[in-house]
Amino acid sequence: MEFTARQIAEVLNGKVDGNPDVTIHTLAKIDEALPGTLTFLANPVYTPFIYTTQASVIIVNEDFVPTQPVPGTMIRVENAYVAFARVLELAQTMQSARKGISPQAYIAKSAKIGEDVYIAEFVSVGENAVIGKGAKLYPNAVVGDNVSIGENTIIYAGVKLYHDCIVGKDCTLHAGVVIGADGFGFAPQAGEQYVKVIQAGNVVIHDDVEIGANTTIDRATLGSTVIGKGAKIDNLIQIAHNVEIGENTVIAAQTGIAGSTKIGNNCLIAGQVGIVGHLKIGNNVMIGAQSGIEHDIKDGDAFLGTPAQQVAKTRRLYVHWRNFDQLVKKIYQLEKLLKKE
Amino acid sequence: MEFTARQIAEVLNGKVDGNPDVTIHTLAKIDEALPGTLTFLANPVYTPFIYTTQASVIIVNEDFVPTQPVPGTMIRVENAYVAFARVLELAQTMQSARKGISPQAYIAKSAKIGEDVYIAEFVSVGENAVIGKGAKLYPNAVVGDNVSIGENTIIYAGVKLYHDCIVGKDCTLHAGVVIGADGFGFAPQAGEQYVKVIQAGNVVIHDDVEIGANTTIDRATLGSTVIGKGAKIDNLIQIAHNVEIGENTVIAAQTGIAGSTKIGNNCLIAGQVGIVGHLKIGNNVMIGAQSGIEHDIKDGDAFLGTPAQQVAKTRRLYVHWRNFDQLVKKIYQLEKLLKKE
Amino acid sequence: MEFTARQIAEVLNGKVDGNPDVTIHTLAKIDEALPGTLTFLANPVYTPFIYTTQASVIIVNEDFVPTQPVPGTMIRVENAYVAFARVLELAQTMQSARKGISPQAYIAKSAKIGEDVYIAEFVSVGENAVIGKGAKLYPNAVVGDNVSIGENTIIYAGVKLYHDCIVGKDCTLHAGVVIGADGFGFAPQAGEQYVKVIQAGNVVIHDDVEIGANTTIDRATLGSTVIGKGAKIDNLIQIAHNVEIGENTVIAAQTGIAGSTKIGNNCLIAGQVGIVGHLKIGNNVMIGAQSGIEHDIKDGDAFLGTPAQQVAKTRRLYVHWRNFDQLVKKIYQLEKLLKKE
Repeated sequence: MEFTARQIAEVLNGKVDGNPDVTIHTLAKIDEALPGTLTFLANPVYTPFIYTTQASVIIVNEDFVPTQPVPGTMIRVENAYVAFARVLELAQTMQSARKGISPQAYIAKSAKIGEDVYIAEFVSVGENAVIGKGAKLYPNAVVGDNVSIGENTIIYAGVKLYHDCIVGKDCTLHAGVVIGADGFGFAPQAGEQYVKVIQAGNVVIHDDVEIGANTTIDRATLGSTVIGKGAKIDNLIQIAHNVEIGENTVIAAQTGIAGSTKIGNNCLIAGQVGIVGHLKIGNNVMIGAQSGIEHDIKDGDAFLGTPAQQVAKTRRLYVHWRNFDQLVKKIYQLEKLLKKE
Repeated sequence: MEFTARQIAEVLNGKVDGNPDVTIHTLAKIDEALPGTLTFLANPVYTPFIYTTQASVIIVNEDFVPTQPVPGTMIRVENAYVAFARVLELAQTMQSARKGISPQAYIAKSAKIGEDVYIAEFVSVGENAVIGKGAKLYPNAVVGDNVSIGENTIIYAGVKLYHDCIVGKDCTLHAGVVIGADGFGFAPQAGEQYVKVIQAGNVVIHDDVEIGANTTIDRATLGSTVIGKGAKIDNLIQIAHNVEIGENTVIAAQTGIAGSTKIGNNCLIAGQVGIVGHLKIGNNVMIGAQSGIEHDIKDGDAFLGTPAQQVAKTRRLYVHWRNFDQLVKKIYQLEKLLKKE
Repeated sequence: MEFTARQIAEVLNGKVDGNPDVTIHTLAKIDEALPGTLTFLANPVYTPFIYTTQASVIIVNEDFVPTQPVPGTMIRVENAYVAFARVLELAQTMQSARKGISPQAYIAKSAKIGEDVYIAEFVSVGENAVIGKGAKLYPNAVVGDNVSIGENTIIYAGVKLYHDCIVGKDCTLHAGVVIGADGFGFAPQAGEQYVKVIQAGNVVIHDDVEIGANTTIDRATLGSTVIGKGAKIDNLIQIAHNVEIGENTVIAAQTGIAGSTKIGNNCLIAGQVGIVGHLKIGNNVMIGAQSGIEHDIKDGDAFLGTPAQQVAKTRRLYVHWRNFDQLVKKIYQLEKLLKKE
């Protein structure tokens, strides 16, 4: 959507200083802004940028006195920082104001649909599924039989929820997420073939969880794979069957967690980490990027590296690693010295 | 779906001991069961859990004599283990009993559709595609022109199959899988630009293959990228153009295999492994998690680490790594001693 | 699609030598060809394969004289290499000749649709979106509000473009790509919960970019995440908010780039690399597979390993690593020698 400087000034109760008809379609930082963006100047450190920024509109404090010509249109407000935060919130609200059910959606007759939902075109909602009040299902989302989605949860385009999975309230599942695909379980047979172990459990996602694009969370063999309240899971993450993630735990992109591992509350797990199966990771644990975790970790501990050890130790080992050339030289010198004697 | 204890007892030819109207909607282990689940007690080691489990219904052997009150409803059967296995199979069968073609699917006129298929809403089936008898296509699956899908193969929601790819019988492709996107081939040009190398081959997936959610398998430049019979491929795996995977080879999540590498039969490749292009990995090879493979591997060998070496060696090197602090100290002590002399 | 040897000979102005009615449906190399494929023989080194190839049709130079029976049908042309290249191009052209708008697509009334576009069934095009002339949207693609797609760009099946993102001309986005999901930004609150940082920017993809299957590129917090002209991005890659990728930079599969990192032009980044946030990677930089990058890299430098160092150094350290057993033995021998003295 596009807005003119005049429209924005009206909303913010500000005064236009410059061309009121210039339009913006997105927001930017003052030092990176391109034409068509709205930005703001609150911190005086950034004042020099107002004379060079390509931003079309800049929100400034009402008492701002330029010392050079300002190329963009200014909107003068009482508090530029507060006003910009207000614009951010408005942008978010407009984005999420969608309502209504598309006639091009498919909704099974037995599904229970709450009030004020948004169900877009080409969404499929299965038998006995429950869609909570105010929930939003973007185009091409697929909700399996018996799935339950809590109030105000946002399911973005092309998310796939397999049968019997449960998603709490106020969650956000980004595009391409797959919840409840079969856990990876195969029993070796005679003749080197495998027979599939039936995956009869489900996935339970508690309230206030955010899950990033194309992340996959497998259903449990029996029972549930569980994502705790307030957990934040980034893009392209693999969470295997029967894993449990604690409350408010944050996991960065491309990390993988193998089957049946339990992770505590308030952990911070960086990107591209691998955690083997059947481990117990405590509360308040930190794990550095690309680490390979093979053992349990106690509450409050911080690990890094492959094989992972406590961060301080791994950082020391990295110093030795960088000095390995000199260490090897030293060993050969010592050997030479000793043999001479 | 929900079932009462009475309904389950009828199917299993068992006797209800407790409230017959209590309902269950999923299955669980006795030590992890939540309300609304069905579990079983067969191994006496687990007997203590029957007095504390939150499971709504527990299948027990008909001669089981509780020594304390059991909170859930029991169903007494001749053999609790066999009965629970029967329930698992029934759950699976019900899940896969779908049939029929949605009027909201798109099927090109030239496509050949077998008997007893399930084609869900918003599925797209391209020109000359062949869908085998009993195959199932879940919502929003996309089947390109000339694609062939074998009998009883399951294509879950949102799978994308590019033109000319071939999938065998009794395969399972989980949600979000992409088969046959262009291989990553670009030829550098003058001026530092690249020109795309046309990817004119396809992907051939043999019978009994399972492919995990959001995994990507690229089409060959010429010829075929091949997944052998019975191979099991986990989630978020990258298989590049012209790769060949042998029969009954198992690959865990987030592993990547670069172009033209051939992998033998009955291999076990753990998660987050990277294998560079144009290698030959033998039969019965094992590769540990997060390994980086730069060289061919012979039949029956086991590798680990980056740079990867035989597992026993890498495990020894990991011991040295953990002791690196002490080794470095020792070197400096030796140096000091020698200089003093 | 299938073609007979006769049809192909007509197009190539060649002569059929063998059964003109044999059919082919794909292309292959002569040493890997299966029945139903078309191949060619130009380089004399490959001549022995023509007597054993399973290819149904082989394009040969008109003066080729077999010394044994050739099992397939030959098509004799002036220059076999040129003729095969012509077939490759024809295959590509036929594949991309699609046009027309499916009545089963959803297109918002305010969207602007260029001439000669292909919009398949179950595609969703949002409010004020702009689809350039000749662009192709495959089944189940989702184009958000205000998205702009340039001329002749191909959006494959199930791609999801969030609102306000911009894609240039002549780009190719492969199936399952997600552009513009929220950046991963959460501010810690009292009580160990997190509050979401609104992600109000977008993604801008310049002309001639190719993006591989299931790759995710997050929208900026403010401003734009930018993919430069001619960049080639492989499958299952994570590009976080506010990242900028330079022109003609090539990134292999499963690499992850954390927030706000800027990467220069003409870089080559291998697979499974992790790059932390807020770094500056110069122009013409090479990064080896599975590297972990924690520091800025200057123009023209080449890095490898975790922690990454210049390639030559890391290669030397890898030699020490492989010899670590012997180095440790030597240290203990020296210690013993010294203590004896």
